[in-house]
Amino acid sequence: MKFESMLLQMKDRMPERRFIHTRGVAETATQLAAKYGEDIEKAEIAGILHDSVKYAEKSWLKEIIISEQMDPMLLNFHHELWHAPVGSYVARQEFNIEDADILNAIQYHTTGRAGMSNLEKIVYIADMIEPSRSFPGVEVLREIANQDLEEGMLSCVQHSMTFLIKKRQPVFSDSFHCYNDLIQKRGKVKE
Amino acid sequence: MKFESMLLQMKDRMPERRFIHTRGVAETATQLAAKYGEDIEKAEIAGILHDSVKYAEKSWLKEIIISEQMDPMLLNFHHELWHAPVGSYVARQEFNIEDADILNAIQYHTTGRAGMSNLEKIVYIADMIEPSRSFPGVEVLREIANQDLEEGMLSCVQHSMTFLIKKRQPVFSDSFHCYNDLIQKRGKVKE
Repeated sequence: MKFESMLLQMKDRMPERRFIHTRGVAETATQLAAKYGEDIEKAEIAGILHDSVKYAEKSWLKEIIISEQMDPMLLNFHHELWHAPVGSYVARQEFNIEDADILNAIQYHTTGRAGMSNLEKIVYIADMIEPSRSFPGVEVLREIANQDLEEGMLSCVQHSMTFLIKKRQPVFSDSFHCYNDLIQKRGKVKE
Repeated sequence: MKFESMLLQMKDRMPERRFIHTRGVAETATQLAAKYGEDIEKAEIAGILHDSVKYAEKSWLKEIIISEQMDPMLLNFHHELWHAPVGSYVARQEFNIEDADILNAIQYHTTGRAGMSNLEKIVYIADMIEPSRSFPGVEVLREIANQDLEEGMLSCVQHSMTFLIKKRQPVFSDSFHCYNDLIQKRGKVKE
Protein backbone atom coordinates (compact mmCIF):
# COMPACT_ATOMS: atom_id res chain seq x y z
CA MET A 1 0.00 0.00 0.00
CA LYS A 2 1.80 3.07 -1.29
CA PHE A 3 -0.62 5.82 -0.32
CA GLU A 4 -0.49 5.23 3.43
CA SER A 5 -1.29 8.78 4.58
CA MET A 6 -4.32 9.00 2.29
CA LEU A 7 -5.54 5.71 3.68
CA LEU A 8 -5.04 6.88 7.28
CA GLN A 9 -7.22 9.91 6.57
CA MET A 10 -9.96 7.53 5.48
CA LYS A 11 -9.67 5.72 8.83
CA ASP A 12 -10.80 8.92 10.60
CA ARG A 13 -13.82 9.32 8.33
CA MET A 14 -15.50 5.96 8.71
CA PRO A 15 -16.19 3.09 11.12
CA GLU A 16 -13.75 0.15 11.30
CA ARG A 17 -15.95 -2.10 9.13
CA ARG A 18 -16.07 0.43 6.30
CA PHE A 19 -12.32 1.05 6.61
CA ILE A 20 -11.70 -2.69 6.13
CA HIS A 21 -13.94 -2.50 3.05
CA THR A 22 -11.97 0.53 1.75
CA ARG A 23 -8.66 -1.31 2.08
CA GLY A 24 -10.23 -4.31 0.40
CA VAL A 25 -11.43 -2.24 -2.57
CA ALA A 26 -7.99 -0.62 -2.97
CA GLU A 27 -6.28 -4.02 -2.89
CA THR A 28 -8.76 -5.74 -5.19
CA ALA A 29 -8.68 -2.81 -7.63
CA THR A 30 -4.87 -2.90 -7.81
CA GLN A 31 -4.95 -6.67 -8.41
CA LEU A 32 -7.50 -6.30 -11.20
CA ALA A 33 -5.54 -3.38 -12.70
CA ALA A 34 -2.38 -5.52 -12.74
CA LYS A 35 -4.29 -8.40 -14.33
CA TYR A 36 -5.89 -6.29 -17.05
CA GLY A 37 -2.96 -3.98 -17.81
CA GLU A 38 -4.44 -0.82 -16.30
CA ASP A 39 -2.64 1.80 -14.20
CA ILE A 40 -2.11 0.27 -10.74
CA GLU A 41 -1.57 3.55 -8.89
CA LYS A 42 -4.76 5.07 -10.29
CA ALA A 43 -6.69 1.98 -9.24
CA GLU A 44 -5.22 2.19 -5.73
CA ILE A 45 -6.04 5.91 -5.33
CA ALA A 46 -9.61 5.45 -6.59
CA GLY A 47 -10.08 2.46 -4.27
CA ILE A 48 -8.81 4.36 -1.22
CA LEU A 49 -10.93 7.47 -1.89
CA HIS A 50 -14.13 5.93 -3.26
CA ASP A 51 -16.08 6.03 0.03
CA SER A 52 -14.48 9.15 1.57
CA VAL A 53 -17.84 10.85 2.21
CA LYS A 54 -19.95 7.74 2.85
CA TYR A 55 -20.57 8.98 6.40
CA ALA A 56 -20.87 12.69 5.65
CA GLU A 57 -24.03 14.53 6.69
CA LYS A 58 -26.85 14.11 4.19
CA SER A 59 -27.56 17.85 4.28
CA TRP A 60 -23.95 18.61 3.32
CA LEU A 61 -23.94 16.05 0.50
CA LYS A 62 -27.13 17.65 -0.81
CA GLU A 63 -25.58 21.11 -0.63
CA ILE A 64 -22.59 19.99 -2.72
CA ILE A 65 -24.83 18.29 -5.30
CA ILE A 66 -26.72 21.57 -5.70
CA SER A 67 -23.79 24.00 -5.52
CA GLU A 68 -21.67 21.92 -7.93
CA GLN A 69 -24.60 21.53 -10.32
CA MET A 70 -24.45 17.74 -10.30
CA ASP A 71 -27.34 15.73 -11.81
CA PRO A 72 -30.39 17.08 -9.94
CA MET A 73 -32.15 13.71 -10.38
CA LEU A 74 -29.79 12.37 -7.68
CA LEU A 75 -31.90 14.21 -5.10
CA ASN A 76 -34.99 12.20 -6.10
CA PHE A 77 -33.12 8.98 -5.36
CA HIS A 78 -31.84 7.38 -2.15
CA HIS A 79 -29.00 9.31 -0.45
CA GLU A 80 -26.92 6.11 -0.74
CA LEU A 81 -26.20 7.32 -4.30
CA TRP A 82 -24.94 10.75 -3.23
CA HIS A 83 -21.57 9.79 -1.74
CA ALA A 84 -20.10 8.68 -5.08
CA PRO A 85 -20.34 11.94 -7.08
CA VAL A 86 -19.59 14.02 -3.97
CA GLY A 87 -16.64 11.68 -3.23
CA SER A 88 -15.28 12.52 -6.67
CA TYR A 89 -15.61 16.23 -5.88
CA VAL A 90 -13.80 15.74 -2.54
CA ALA A 91 -11.02 13.76 -4.24
CA ARG A 92 -10.36 16.81 -6.44
CA GLN A 93 -10.84 19.49 -3.79
CA GLU A 94 -9.18 17.92 -0.75
CA PHE A 95 -6.82 15.33 -2.21
CA ASN A 96 -5.81 17.27 -5.33
CA ILE A 97 -6.65 14.46 -7.71
CA GLU A 98 -6.82 15.89 -11.22
CA ASP A 99 -6.86 12.67 -13.25
CA ALA A 100 -10.28 12.42 -14.93
CA ASP A 101 -10.22 8.62 -15.02
CA ILE A 102 -9.70 8.37 -11.25
CA LEU A 103 -12.39 10.99 -10.62
CA ASN A 104 -14.85 9.16 -12.89
CA ALA A 105 -14.04 5.81 -11.26
CA ILE A 106 -15.02 7.33 -7.90
CA GLN A 107 -18.06 9.15 -9.33
CA TYR A 108 -19.58 6.05 -10.97
CA HIS A 109 -18.54 3.34 -8.52
CA THR A 110 -22.11 2.83 -7.24
CA THR A 111 -24.24 3.25 -10.37
CA GLY A 112 -21.92 2.57 -13.28
CA ARG A 113 -22.71 4.44 -16.51
CA ALA A 114 -22.68 3.92 -20.28
CA GLY A 115 -19.21 4.00 -21.82
CA MET A 116 -17.16 3.18 -18.73
CA SER A 117 -13.36 3.04 -18.97
CA ASN A 118 -11.53 -0.08 -17.80
CA LEU A 119 -10.46 1.73 -14.62
CA GLU A 120 -14.08 2.65 -13.88
CA LYS A 121 -15.11 -1.00 -14.36
CA ILE A 122 -12.28 -2.20 -12.13
CA VAL A 123 -13.31 0.06 -9.23
CA TYR A 124 -17.02 -0.78 -9.69
CA ILE A 125 -16.20 -4.51 -9.58
CA ALA A 126 -13.71 -4.20 -6.70
CA ASP A 127 -16.36 -2.40 -4.63
CA MET A 128 -18.64 -5.39 -5.08
CA ILE A 129 -16.24 -8.32 -4.70
CA GLU A 130 -13.48 -7.19 -2.26
CA PRO A 131 -12.70 -9.86 0.36
CA SER A 132 -14.98 -8.56 3.15
CA ARG A 133 -18.10 -8.78 0.94
CA SER A 134 -20.11 -11.89 1.79
CA PHE A 135 -23.49 -11.80 0.00
CA PRO A 136 -24.82 -14.93 -1.75
CA GLY A 137 -23.22 -15.21 -5.18
CA VAL A 138 -20.13 -13.13 -4.45
CA GLU A 139 -17.79 -16.10 -4.98
CA VAL A 140 -19.07 -16.60 -8.53
CA LEU A 141 -18.65 -12.88 -9.25
CA ARG A 142 -15.04 -13.05 -7.99
CA GLU A 143 -14.28 -15.97 -10.28
CA ILE A 144 -15.78 -14.31 -13.35
CA ALA A 145 -14.08 -10.95 -12.64
CA ASN A 146 -10.73 -12.71 -12.41
CA GLN A 147 -11.23 -14.38 -15.78
CA ASP A 148 -12.67 -11.58 -17.95
CA LEU A 149 -13.15 -7.88 -17.18
CA GLU A 150 -16.18 -7.39 -19.47
CA GLU A 151 -17.89 -10.55 -18.22
CA GLY A 152 -17.09 -9.56 -14.64
CA MET A 153 -18.57 -6.08 -15.14
CA LEU A 154 -21.73 -7.38 -16.79
CA SER A 155 -22.21 -10.06 -14.12
CA CYS A 156 -21.83 -7.48 -11.33
CA VAL A 157 -24.31 -5.11 -13.01
CA GLN A 158 -26.78 -7.97 -13.55
CA HIS A 159 -26.45 -8.87 -9.87
CA SER A 160 -26.94 -5.29 -8.74
CA MET A 161 -29.98 -4.61 -10.98
CA THR A 162 -31.63 -7.90 -10.06
CA PHE A 163 -31.06 -7.17 -6.36
CA LEU A 164 -32.62 -3.69 -6.64
CA ILE A 165 -35.64 -4.97 -8.61
CA LYS A 166 -36.23 -7.83 -6.16
CA LYS A 167 -36.13 -5.32 -3.27
CA ARG A 168 -38.38 -2.91 -5.20
CA GLN A 169 -35.80 -0.16 -5.09
CA PRO A 170 -35.68 2.45 -7.87
CA VAL A 171 -32.91 2.05 -10.46
CA PHE A 172 -30.93 5.21 -11.28
CA SER A 173 -30.77 6.07 -14.99
CA ASP A 174 -26.94 5.72 -15.10
CA SER A 175 -27.27 2.07 -13.98
CA PHE A 176 -29.92 1.39 -16.61
CA HIS A 177 -27.77 2.92 -19.37
CA CYS A 178 -24.72 1.06 -18.05
CA TYR A 179 -26.57 -2.25 -18.35
CA ASN A 180 -27.93 -1.62 -21.87
CA ASP A 181 -24.54 -0.30 -23.04
CA LEU A 182 -22.73 -3.45 -21.85
CA ILE A 183 -25.37 -5.72 -23.42
CA GLN A 184 -25.40 -3.86 -26.72
CA LYS A 185 -21.59 -3.82 -27.00
CA ARG A 186 -21.50 -7.56 -26.33
CA GLY A 187 -24.06 -8.03 -29.09
CA LYS A 188 -21.92 -6.03 -31.48
CA VAL A 189 -18.82 -8.08 -30.69
CA LYS A 190 -20.77 -11.25 -31.48
CA GLU A 191 -22.03 -10.08 -34.87
CA MET B 1 -67.22 -12.51 -26.65
CA LYS B 2 -69.02 -9.58 -28.21
CA PHE B 3 -66.59 -8.62 -30.96
CA GLU B 4 -66.74 -11.90 -32.86
CA SER B 5 -65.91 -10.57 -36.33
CA MET B 6 -62.86 -8.66 -35.05
CA LEU B 7 -61.68 -11.83 -33.35
CA LEU B 8 -62.17 -13.87 -36.53
CA GLN B 9 -59.98 -11.43 -38.45
CA MET B 10 -57.25 -12.12 -35.90
CA LYS B 11 -57.55 -15.83 -36.59
CA ASP B 12 -56.40 -15.21 -40.18
CA ARG B 13 -53.38 -13.20 -39.06
CA MET B 14 -51.70 -15.62 -36.67
CA PRO B 15 -51.03 -19.29 -35.95
CA GLU B 16 -53.49 -21.25 -33.79
CA ARG B 17 -51.31 -21.02 -30.66
CA ARG B 18 -51.18 -17.23 -30.88
CA PHE B 19 -54.93 -17.06 -31.54
CA ILE B 20 -55.57 -19.03 -28.35
CA HIS B 21 -53.33 -16.52 -26.55
CA THR B 22 -55.27 -13.62 -28.11
CA ARG B 23 -58.61 -15.00 -26.90
CA GLY B 24 -57.04 -15.59 -23.49
CA VAL B 25 -55.83 -11.99 -23.24
CA ALA B 26 -59.26 -10.64 -24.26
CA GLU B 27 -61.00 -12.84 -21.67
CA THR B 28 -58.52 -12.14 -18.87
CA ALA B 29 -58.58 -8.40 -19.62
CA THR B 30 -62.39 -8.29 -19.45
CA GLN B 31 -62.34 -10.21 -16.15
CA LEU B 32 -59.78 -7.82 -14.67
CA ALA B 33 -61.72 -4.80 -15.99
CA ALA B 34 -64.89 -6.10 -14.33
CA LYS B 35 -63.00 -6.68 -11.06
CA TYR B 36 -61.38 -3.25 -11.00
CA GLY B 37 -64.30 -1.17 -12.32
CA GLU B 38 -62.81 -0.38 -15.73
CA ASP B 39 -64.59 -0.36 -19.10
CA ILE B 40 -65.13 -4.01 -20.09
CA GLU B 41 -65.65 -3.39 -23.80
CA LYS B 42 -62.45 -1.36 -24.08
CA ALA B 43 -60.55 -4.15 -22.34
CA GLU B 44 -62.01 -6.71 -24.72
CA ILE B 45 -61.17 -4.70 -27.85
CA ALA B 46 -57.61 -4.01 -26.69
CA GLY B 47 -57.17 -7.71 -25.81
CA ILE B 48 -58.41 -8.86 -29.23
CA LEU B 49 -56.28 -6.41 -31.21
CA HIS B 50 -53.08 -6.32 -29.13
CA ASP B 51 -51.13 -8.84 -31.29
CA SER B 52 -52.73 -8.06 -34.68
CA VAL B 53 -49.34 -7.51 -36.39
CA LYS B 54 -47.26 -9.96 -34.35
CA TYR B 55 -46.62 -11.95 -37.56
CA ALA B 56 -46.32 -9.04 -39.97
CA GLU B 57 -43.14 -8.70 -42.05
CA LYS B 58 -40.32 -7.01 -40.14
CA SER B 59 -39.59 -4.74 -43.09
CA TRP B 60 -43.20 -3.50 -43.12
CA LEU B 61 -43.21 -2.93 -39.33
CA LYS B 62 -40.01 -0.92 -39.75
CA GLU B 63 -41.56 1.15 -42.56
CA ILE B 64 -44.54 2.07 -40.39
CA ILE B 65 -42.31 2.99 -37.42
CA ILE B 66 -40.38 5.36 -39.72
CA SER B 67 -43.32 6.77 -41.72
CA GLU B 68 -45.45 7.34 -38.61
CA GLN B 69 -42.50 8.93 -36.79
CA MET B 70 -42.68 6.54 -33.87
CA ASP B 71 -39.82 6.44 -31.33
CA PRO B 72 -36.75 5.81 -33.55
CA MET B 73 -35.01 4.04 -30.64
CA LEU B 74 -37.38 1.11 -31.31
CA LEU B 75 -35.27 0.24 -34.37
CA ASN B 76 -32.19 -0.25 -32.15
CA PHE B 77 -34.08 -2.85 -30.13
CA HIS B 78 -35.36 -6.34 -30.91
CA HIS B 79 -38.19 -6.45 -33.48
CA GLU B 80 -40.29 -8.22 -30.83
CA LEU B 81 -40.99 -4.69 -29.51
CA TRP B 82 -42.24 -3.35 -32.87
CA HIS B 83 -45.62 -5.10 -33.08
CA ALA B 84 -47.09 -3.19 -30.12
CA PRO B 85 -46.82 0.41 -31.39
CA VAL B 86 -47.58 -0.70 -34.96
CA GLY B 87 -50.52 -2.73 -33.63
CA SER B 88 -51.89 0.46 -32.12
CA TYR B 89 -51.54 2.18 -35.50
CA VAL B 90 -53.36 -0.70 -37.21
CA ALA B 91 -56.14 -0.61 -34.62
CA ARG B 92 -56.78 3.00 -35.61
CA GLN B 93 -56.29 2.65 -39.36
CA GLU B 94 -57.96 -0.70 -40.06
CA PHE B 95 -60.34 -1.19 -37.15
CA ASN B 96 -61.34 2.46 -36.69
CA ILE B 97 -60.51 2.53 -33.00
CA GLU B 98 -60.33 6.16 -31.89
CA ASP B 99 -60.31 5.71 -28.12
CA ALA B 100 -56.89 6.85 -26.87
CA ASP B 101 -56.97 4.53 -23.85
CA ILE B 102 -57.49 1.44 -26.04
CA LEU B 103 -54.79 2.58 -28.47
CA ASN B 104 -52.33 3.18 -25.61
CA ALA B 105 -53.17 -0.18 -24.02
CA ILE B 106 -52.17 -1.84 -27.32
CA GLN B 107 -49.13 0.40 -27.81
CA TYR B 108 -47.62 -0.27 -24.38
CA HIS B 109 -48.68 -3.88 -23.80
CA THR B 110 -45.10 -5.21 -24.20
CA THR B 111 -42.97 -2.52 -22.55
CA GLY B 112 -45.30 -0.68 -20.20
CA ARG B 113 -44.51 3.00 -19.61
CA ALA B 114 -44.52 5.62 -16.83
CA GLY B 115 -47.99 6.88 -15.95
CA MET B 116 -50.06 3.96 -17.27
CA SER B 117 -53.84 4.08 -17.03
CA ASN B 118 -55.70 1.22 -15.34
CA LEU B 119 -56.76 -0.13 -18.76
CA GLU B 120 -53.13 -0.14 -19.92
CA LYS B 121 -52.13 -2.05 -16.77
CA ILE B 122 -54.96 -4.54 -17.26
CA VAL B 123 -53.92 -5.37 -20.84
CA TYR B 124 -50.23 -5.56 -19.88
CA ILE B 125 -51.06 -7.99 -17.05
CA ALA B 126 -53.56 -10.01 -19.11
CA ASP B 127 -50.91 -10.51 -21.80
CA MET B 128 -48.64 -12.04 -19.17
CA ILE B 129 -51.06 -14.16 -17.14
CA GLU B 130 -53.80 -15.35 -19.57
CA PRO B 131 -54.60 -19.06 -19.15
CA SER B 132 -52.33 -20.42 -21.91
CA ARG B 133 -49.20 -18.85 -20.33
CA SER B 134 -47.22 -21.49 -18.44
CA PHE B 135 -43.82 -20.06 -17.38
CA PRO B 136 -42.50 -20.65 -13.84
CA GLY B 137 -44.09 -18.15 -11.45
CA VAL B 138 -47.19 -17.39 -13.54
CA GLU B 139 -49.55 -18.84 -10.92
CA VAL B 140 -48.26 -16.41 -8.29
CA LEU B 141 -48.66 -13.49 -10.74
CA ARG B 142 -52.28 -14.57 -11.40
CA GLU B 143 -53.04 -14.63 -7.69
CA ILE B 144 -51.54 -11.21 -7.04
CA ALA B 145 -53.21 -9.64 -10.11
CA ASN B 146 -56.58 -10.91 -8.90
CA GLN B 147 -56.09 -9.33 -5.49
CA ASP B 148 -54.64 -5.90 -6.30
CA LEU B 149 -54.13 -4.17 -9.66
CA GLU B 150 -51.09 -2.10 -8.59
CA GLU B 151 -49.39 -5.07 -6.91
CA GLY B 152 -50.20 -7.21 -9.94
CA MET B 153 -48.70 -4.67 -12.32
CA LEU B 154 -45.54 -4.20 -10.27
CA SER B 155 -45.07 -7.96 -9.86
CA CYS B 156 -45.44 -8.51 -13.62
CA VAL B 157 -42.96 -5.72 -14.40
CA GLN B 158 -40.49 -7.11 -11.82
CA HIS B 159 -40.84 -10.53 -13.43
CA SER B 160 -40.33 -9.16 -16.93
CA MET B 161 -37.29 -7.00 -16.04
CA THR B 162 -35.65 -9.80 -14.06
CA PHE B 163 -36.22 -12.22 -16.95
CA LEU B 164 -34.64 -9.83 -19.47
CA ILE B 165 -31.64 -9.11 -17.24
CA LYS B 166 -31.07 -12.82 -16.55
CA LYS B 167 -31.16 -13.47 -20.32
CA ARG B 168 -28.88 -10.47 -20.99
CA GLN B 169 -31.46 -8.81 -23.19
CA PRO B 170 -31.55 -5.00 -23.46
CA VAL B 171 -34.32 -3.24 -21.55
CA PHE B 172 -36.30 -0.60 -23.49
CA SER B 173 -36.43 2.82 -21.82
CA ASP B 174 -40.25 2.71 -21.49
CA SER B 175 -39.95 -0.46 -19.37
CA PHE B 176 -37.29 1.14 -17.16
CA HIS B 177 -39.43 4.26 -16.63
CA CYS B 178 -42.50 2.08 -16.03
CA TYR B 179 -40.67 0.22 -13.24
CA ASN B 180 -39.30 3.35 -11.52
CA ASP B 181 -42.67 5.09 -11.82
CA LEU B 182 -44.50 2.21 -10.12
CA ILE B 183 -41.87 2.00 -7.36
CA GLN B 184 -41.84 5.72 -6.72
CA LYS B 185 -45.64 5.98 -6.60
CA ARG B 186 -45.76 3.12 -4.11
CA GLY B 187 -43.20 4.97 -1.99
CA LYS B 188 -45.33 8.11 -2.06
CA VAL B 189 -48.47 6.22 -1.03
CA LYS B 190 -46.61 4.78 1.95
CA GLU B 191 -45.30 8.13 3.23
